[in-house]
Amino acid sequence: MKRPRGFASDNNAAVHPDVMQAMIDCNTGHAIGYGDDKYTREAQTIFKQVFGDATEIFFVYNGTGANVVAIQALTRSFNAVVCADTAHINVDECGAPEKASGCKLLPITTSNGKITVSDIKKYMHGFGFEHHAQPKVISITQATELGTVYTPAEIREIADYVHSMGLFLHMDGARLANAAAALNCSLAEVSIGAGVDVLSFGGTKNGLMFGEVVVFANASLCQDVKYIRKQSTQLHSKMRFIAAQFTALLSNDLWLKNARHANQMAKLLHQGLQSIEGVQITQRVESNGIFAMIPQEIISLLQEEFFFYVWNQERSEVRWMTSFDTTQEDIETFLTVLRKKLEYINSITK
Amino acid sequence: MKRPRGFASDNNAAVHPDVMQAMIDCNTGHAIGYGDDKYTREAQTIFKQVFGDATEIFFVYNGTGANVVAIQALTRSFNAVVCADTAHINVDECGAPEKASGCKLLPITTSNGKITVSDIKKYMHGFGFEHHAQPKVISITQATELGTVYTPAEIREIADYVHSMGLFLHMDGARLANAAAALNCSLAEVSIGAGVDVLSFGGTKNGLMFGEVVVFANASLCQDVKYIRKQSTQLHSKMRFIAAQFTALLSNDLWLKNARHANQMAKLLHQGLQSIEGVQITQRVESNGIFAMIPQEIISLLQEEFFFYVWNQERSEVRWMTSFDTTQEDIETFLTVLRKKLEYINSITK
Amino acid sequence: MKRPRGFASDNNAAVHPDVMQAMIDCNTGHAIGYGDDKYTREAQTIFKQVFGDATEIFFVYNGTGANVVAIQALTRSFNAVVCADTAHINVDECGAPEKASGCKLLPITTSNGKITVSDIKKYMHGFGFEHHAQPKVISITQATELGTVYTPAEIREIADYVHSMGLFLHMDGARLANAAAALNCSLAEVSIGAGVDVLSFGGTKNGLMFGEVVVFANASLCQDVKYIRKQSTQLHSKMRFIAAQFTALLSNDLWLKNARHANQMAKLLHQGLQSIEGVQITQRVESNGIFAMIPQEIISLLQEEFFFYVWNQERSEVRWMTSFDTTQEDIETFLTVLRKKLEYINSITK
Amino acid sequence: MKRPRGFASDNNAAVHPDVMQAMIDCNTGHAIGYGDDKYTREAQTIFKQVFGDATEIFFVYNGTGANVVAIQALTRSFNAVVCADTAHINVDECGAPEKASGCKLLPITTSNGKITVSDIKKYMHGFGFEHHAQPKVISITQATELGTVYTPAEIREIADYVHSMGLFLHMDGARLANAAAALNCSLAEVSIGAGVDVLSFGGTKNGLMFGEVVVFANASLCQDVKYIRKQSTQLHSKMRFIAAQFTALLSNDLWLKNARHANQMAKLLHQGLQSIEGVQITQRVESNGIFAMIPQEIISLLQEEFFFYVWNQERSEVRWMTSFDTTQEDIETFLTVLRKKLEYINSITK
Repeated sequence: MKRPRGFASDNNAAVHPDVMQAMIDCNTGHAIGYGDDKYTREAQTIFKQVFGDATEIFFVYNGTGANVVAIQALTRSFNAVVCADTAHINVDECGAPEKASGCKLLPITTSNGKITVSDIKKYMHGFGFEHHAQPKVISITQATELGTVYTPAEIREIADYVHSMGLFLHMDGARLANAAAALNCSLAEVSIGAGVDVLSFGGTKNGLMFGEVVVFANASLCQDVKYIRKQSTQLHSKMRFIAAQFTALLSNDLWLKNARHANQMAKLLHQGLQSIEGVQITQRVESNGIFAMIPQEIISLLQEEFFFYVWNQERSEVRWMTSFDTTQEDIETFLTVLRKKLEYINSITK
Repeated sequence: MKRPRGFASDNNAAVHPDVMQAMIDCNTGHAIGYGDDKYTREAQTIFKQVFGDATEIFFVYNGTGANVVAIQALTRSFNAVVCADTAHINVDECGAPEKASGCKLLPITTSNGKITVSDIKKYMHGFGFEHHAQPKVISITQATELGTVYTPAEIREIADYVHSMGLFLHMDGARLANAAAALNCSLAEVSIGAGVDVLSFGGTKNGLMFGEVVVFANASLCQDVKYIRKQSTQLHSKMRFIAAQFTALLSNDLWLKNARHANQMAKLLHQGLQSIEGVQITQRVESNGIFAMIPQEIISLLQEEFFFYVWNQERSEVRWMTSFDTTQEDIETFLTVLRKKLEYINSITK
Repeated sequence: MKRPRGFASDNNAAVHPDVMQAMIDCNTGHAIGYGDDKYTREAQTIFKQVFGDATEIFFVYNGTGANVVAIQALTRSFNAVVCADTAHINVDECGAPEKASGCKLLPITTSNGKITVSDIKKYMHGFGFEHHAQPKVISITQATELGTVYTPAEIREIADYVHSMGLFLHMDGARLANAAAALNCSLAEVSIGAGVDVLSFGGTKNGLMFGEVVVFANASLCQDVKYIRKQSTQLHSKMRFIAAQFTALLSNDLWLKNARHANQMAKLLHQGLQSIEGVQITQRVESNGIFAMIPQEIISLLQEEFFFYVWNQERSEVRWMTSFDTTQEDIETFLTVLRKKLEYINSITK
Repeated sequence: MKRPRGFASDNNAAVHPDVMQAMIDCNTGHAIGYGDDKYTREAQTIFKQVFGDATEIFFVYNGTGANVVAIQALTRSFNAVVCADTAHINVDECGAPEKASGCKLLPITTSNGKITVSDIKKYMHGFGFEHHAQPKVISITQATELGTVYTPAEIREIADYVHSMGLFLHMDGARLANAAAALNCSLAEVSIGAGVDVLSFGGTKNGLMFGEVVVFANASLCQDVKYIRKQSTQLHSKMRFIAAQFTALLSNDLWLKNARHANQMAKLLHQGLQSIEGVQITQRVESNGIFAMIPQEIISLLQEEFFFYVWNQERSEVRWMTSFDTTQEDIETFLTVLRKKLEYINSITK
């Protein structure tokens, strides 16, 4: 019996058929390795159309790779990087940013994964004082690890402040497409266009097989990046296969269709959950993730049938992610099972 | 007009159709990320059949990634790694091993890319002396960067010595398949089975799209490797797509067919070159690479029609690599063009 | 005109005459470098008397050096170190621990610089989960950066918990002597004897010229430390001059006299401050540091005559440190000036 | 019975009385920590007189510390440092340069410890090629680890070439004073003045207790060095005690007297050795070190009475270093003993 699609992560999804087809299509004859090929050039052209002519891109393997290449490009080892304490770079990369860059991470506690100028200001001291790691990069996640999104105005406010301090703004855009779809904006409007200096733009969570891109707002920011990428083990030899995937993703609005669908499925799930007693939504549902507190006893019962993660054991809070291939039926099945489990639990505990 | 296949590198080749098909076949429904899926388990089972029940494997993205994960697993930062000065870890990874591990690399000058116990002994001093980086790993490449191969007996001799000194033997097997095919041995016989402790086993140069494997001779060598892999940015989320490729490669002797074919094409090219005056072969042709000195004036003329690399500018030495998809026609076309260019040059210079 | 002694830091003090004499006394003839000399052996013997026969010591240059050697000895780069957010390793070492060890620091917010088992527990999750830096070391400071001290019972409680989790307890003892004097305990009782695995024991703040010691509870913890110390640039050639200082410090209870005096001067200052309106003590005065909020306008006026640091600009909180050479007269002069400045400010603002 | 002074290393010597006196003299009252004190300012003024007004200095603890601070200032982790294979940074620092900077070291085999433009050129390729660590620093040692010295003209030739390639020239001047004395030049003439960009200037081998200086040719080279020094654990708190030592060393030509004496003692030893059969001098005696091959059987017999190191076990080559406090009597005693041991050995073996 086949297990139904779960809600563990959008990277549990398969590869979108159009993306797979693009890989098949470029699998013909030889191509010079490491990016000196026509597929990579084609993708670079499309990226400039999407993010602006001044931007420069570097393909890498994955999100952690993109983040550590970006951070190294902007820092020296005595610098510090300010981010939300929920940031992927802070909690989900096994210390890769510290190891690769030598930098200290300065975490900000937030209620919703979003940081503000006021939060950042708390770390804006000690400049010129040799005993303190010198803040140089502010890193925000779009959409955040808690499913919330920054509006272009919010990003611009942070960017303006960050630049006024002589610092750089990095964006972890592993789910940038979901944020753009949610805000009904272009990819650029919710990132580079709003003042972001360096963007880690993800594809794997939106239908690709592998590959991410580091997008630099202009060439002055990436003079050394080709060496940094190689030394960071993030340079792929058969580059055409990353490039072709991104060309597919950025063509025919595939990125938007996929992200919009995932977001809609999250909305649908959210609507269904609102009428279920015992489920308490803990974050605003703005992209493709839902956070909710549910009775402790229900969790493992549910996990027997659907994959998903416990976000906070103490609070009995779980995370449900939707993806480009989640179906309306998946949602309905899940809601039905959830309701049954809750009824069962209630019947027992009464 | 389509450019003919060149001889720049076996990683300029496309993806083998069987490998591509395996990726298509596993692109169905959701699979838990990061390796907790049936495709990865299947691949792990096959790997144990190939390299032995005691071995443990970790999939990574690429060869440099495999090497830095392997080295970190075996060392602390005050250690040193002994290798041939032509080793990929020494000259082609932009210092990634030093950066990632903190270790010093101790290069050995060789005539053919192969190191011997006698070479290694020169570095076997200073143990216990705190001023010296402490040798801990010997790294050999199979097949070497110069196209030569180590016989099982040669590996065993090195392994026995290395182990007698309390050190580890690492093998960079980016072209292990070519070596095994050349020696008419199994993959294990020319690596783990001959005493190698940790193997970087490559697939990209033999028909895969992306993905390599770090193979540990036994579980005691890789207690911390899952963290090292993640922190080194080498953990893929949609792991099934690496696993499925390797399953295809190791099934139906595809690895052997591909490698054997590439080797045979190199032999064919070698035979053709021997009758051409002005071409001097500089290394034994034992796998799928040919090194030759040719007249300086011919190089750029040839490169206009075929991609390949100059190996040593001063010596006017070039490298020609064949791959699984090189055809007899490719070889014949190349030899014909080469002969013509040489005749033309000779006619001018007389 | 000579400026009076200030209260900036106990490392602004001079070298104690007995310590200087010890350096003069050992300055005779040649001695083998790097610690293979009779002065170092003598110091090692005394250290074993003080901290226990099982302990092993390594001399280094300074406190940051001691801490990074200690952390490297206990960790691999994928580990994490839990500490108070006020810890010297977290805020005053310019990111040296992250750079040297690759580890992530996990800061705990405290009111008084002391962490508890309950604080530590918040980070005790994610073990075995490859995405998370793996906690391995808990680091506490004795006396803390806020002048408070851990009792032996408090350390034992932390140590027992830390060990039950398979982790190590590190103590930054830059001011261990002040803590021991304050608690009327031996140096061992407030550190190694209470369960600390590795201790950074400082001398510079208690009358030495340079030099600190890393004390390991037993030999199994420091197998590789001689290499770590050398590679971390912390191995001194003319070692006898560090050893002789420590021998002087640990002889005739000099460490205790110095520390006790500094603590008493802090108490005296504290008593004087209590009767001054406008001065609000913010931390318990348990060793040789006093933290107080004073009117913003007074700070720069006071600093014109006495060196000291602003601890928290926003709260108008300052830090006054006493040292082994602070005199009763220094305190009285300071209190007199402080009273006058406050009166002057009050007269103006009324 | 007191053991006579040996010839193990110039860092086995004591501290020169004038230097010790300077430390005693500055041991009065409080001084702001970390270099913001009058003694440090005085030393900085003298350094500018010695090395030029444009230079900037940073005190550190030791030679390895000076070298790793210098290299980090000039590089990023994807760079490479070219040096003699006998260089201290290559063989005597336990891999500290690689660990601290992430850079690859590219060793040059030499007969006498000196490298030439021609040697350097072998590594001047691969610029812009992302697979290769990018050469950025050439490091030379003055006097070399083999006791030879670079003339100002030799340094200038290297510097001009290095600068023409857009690279930097670093000098490890642990024994710069001995080189200057040998060449009858000023300290600047044999280092910064001849084109060196960054100099590690040592004092410990010439009569100091601890402390070295990193001298930058101009301020543009050291913008970030204060953070690099702190993060590298090389910032001393009681800085006056390093500063005062250097002020003493650079005053009244003490550096010259000490170095000249050490050199003269080496000459004296050399002269005595020339008439002894069975001793074969292997390097030109240009500063304060002598390298010689002596009969294997004599070595341990000699070491029973005098400390010195075997340089090359296979060749039965030893190193004898003289220092500022070596006396004519030390030399004569040593020669007498050596002659006797040789006679004894000869009498036995006949």
